[in-house]
Amino acid sequence: MAEASILKSCLKTPGMIVDNIELEKKLELKQGIIERLTGIKHRYYISNTESLESIASDACIEVINTSGINPSDIDLMIFYTDVPPTYKQNLTLRKRYYEVSPHIQASLRSKSIDLRCECFNMAGSCVVFISAMQIATSLIKCGYKKNILIIGASNNSTFLSENDKNVFMTFGDGAAATIISYSDKPGFIDFFRMTEGEGYDAGYFEDYSTLIINRKRVAEYAPTAFKLAVDGILTKTKLNIEDIDLLIPHQAGSGIIRKGMELCSVPADKVYYCLEDHGNTGAPSLQIALSNAIKENRIKKGDLILLVAFGIGWNYGASVFRY
Amino acid sequence: MAEASILKSCLKTPGMIVDNIELEKKLELKQGIIERLTGIKHRYYISNTESLESIASDACIEVINTSGINPSDIDLMIFYTDVPPTYKQNLTLRKRYYEVSPHIQASLRSKSIDLRCECFNMAGSCVVFISAMQIATSLIKCGYKKNILIIGASNNSTFLSENDKNVFMTFGDGAAATIISYSDKPGFIDFFRMTEGEGYDAGYFEDYSTLIINRKRVAEYAPTAFKLAVDGILTKTKLNIEDIDLLIPHQAGSGIIRKGMELCSVPADKVYYCLEDHGNTGAPSLQIALSNAIKENRIKKGDLILLVAFGIGWNYGASVFRY
Repeated sequence: MAEASILKSCLKTPGMIVDNIELEKKLELKQGIIERLTGIKHRYYISNTESLESIASDACIEVINTSGINPSDIDLMIFYTDVPPTYKQNLTLRKRYYEVSPHIQASLRSKSIDLRCECFNMAGSCVVFISAMQIATSLIKCGYKKNILIIGASNNSTFLSENDKNVFMTFGDGAAATIISYSDKPGFIDFFRMTEGEGYDAGYFEDYSTLIINRKRVAEYAPTAFKLAVDGILTKTKLNIEDIDLLIPHQAGSGIIRKGMELCSVPADKVYYCLEDHGNTGAPSLQIALSNAIKENRIKKGDLILLVAFGIGWNYGASVFRY
Repeated sequence: MAEASILKSCLKTPGMIVDNIELEKKLELKQGIIERLTGIKHRYYISNTESLESIASDACIEVINTSGINPSDIDLMIFYTDVPPTYKQNLTLRKRYYEVSPHIQASLRSKSIDLRCECFNMAGSCVVFISAMQIATSLIKCGYKKNILIIGASNNSTFLSENDKNVFMTFGDGAAATIISYSDKPGFIDFFRMTEGEGYDAGYFEDYSTLIINRKRVAEYAPTAFKLAVDGILTKTKLNIEDIDLLIPHQAGSGIIRKGMELCSVPADKVYYCLEDHGNTGAPSLQIALSNAIKENRIKKGDLILLVAFGIGWNYGASVFRY
């Protein structure tokens, strides 16, 4: 059976940087409180000329152009997001529920990136990247596909309401694109995924326009889900936390990550953290963190990496791979 | 490597039947014109007490209860729909973008169907069932999963506008649930899937509330996509149309199916057709047709079945399996 590994992973930082001073003014908050509460220093929002599709396409262009593979050798594009899809036509936001992945494919083709592949969309909260990687790995192992492009993107900023200052200060926008390819050496070792559906209404987009999060329920459940995910994958792979070179968690919030680490007894120097730069970008957060860790050379060839995600649903999951 | 095959497939017919006479009155159309134009005799809409989640859950309950397997042996639920998700709380429709699959899981658990599994959502038009079946097959072949529940559901009726009588007369609601399980005999033989993204804006839900279809573009492209899908899978599997016992197409419209059959030279007695009873139910249409064909004993053990789908995106795809 073929093996699957990460060929390349890139993030796209949207064009508008929003620092805490600016946001504290807007939300009428005391200066310094956002960093104290959340650990976030700034976040990025899509600019007037950007959209969900454009940041996703930009991430794809970078990953394809730097991967060394021919676009026509990509045989599947998986797109996922947590937000209700929108797009821009002549700078006007279209609130439309539509097929995003074909739009990205058409957009890349119009820029002479000749993608001839299946496209499909996944819709979900912060754990969907784990499911997407397992899907990609299994399609490659079976010989159905050879090179799979996974794209996560989100424009949470379009859905924030000043009525909920906590949500507003936490979320940012971003995109990442990852190519998973067949390989003769094992890359992905295993996956663990679970859902406890009783959390389905702990977060949603009310009237498709406002992100609502039940902060109390999430703060209570998320550290437990973090631990369940870590325990699940370590048991499955018969690995110990000592075997892992770097643990990359979903960048939900500094408090949740700290509690999760404590519950799992993970030392701080083993945990990757980029929340201060991006905020919580929702569904693509883990993929953005992975891409950023690679970009910052925090991951070396041969390292054993543990990815951990948890979110609304409740969903939680983890994956171990050799880079 | 393990094999994957269909263990059981069931459809759920929503509670409100709407016949042509009623609809012709509502849309101020001449009596008899709907059947003449579309081949549809009646369609089903969700009733006041039903929702996207409830019809999906009902289909699951039937498929699980008649499958002979223990709910706790299901290790993945894939839910897909074409519509913006909504749900009902105390009979009130909540227009919320949220995680549907955990909601279905929670709803089944509350009825003592003890599902302990990963759940994820796919979002797409009428071809997503083909992608979902290939995902299920590859996860089973790799040994990652053993029993996978795929659920397609749609309440298109919530999104129909009298301004577009053609769309209004074509669409209906429905749900289907299928369990795909590991097996020692080959079930799924192969899959073919392609996207030509230039059709991404040929259909969408404007402002997340009204289904808009560019009928001219769809009518032009769909028969070609039908042929590309059939040719694609027959070439891949080295089969001829003569080898196939039954071809089940996405139930898009009588004109599109007829043209597709002509382009592929498929004799009418090999094509399964249930459009007259259900209308076009969108994304779950193919899965509903498959379930209905099994229910009506049109499929016998050992038959070679060809599934064909095409839709907005443009997406098209096909699968061949031995029942």
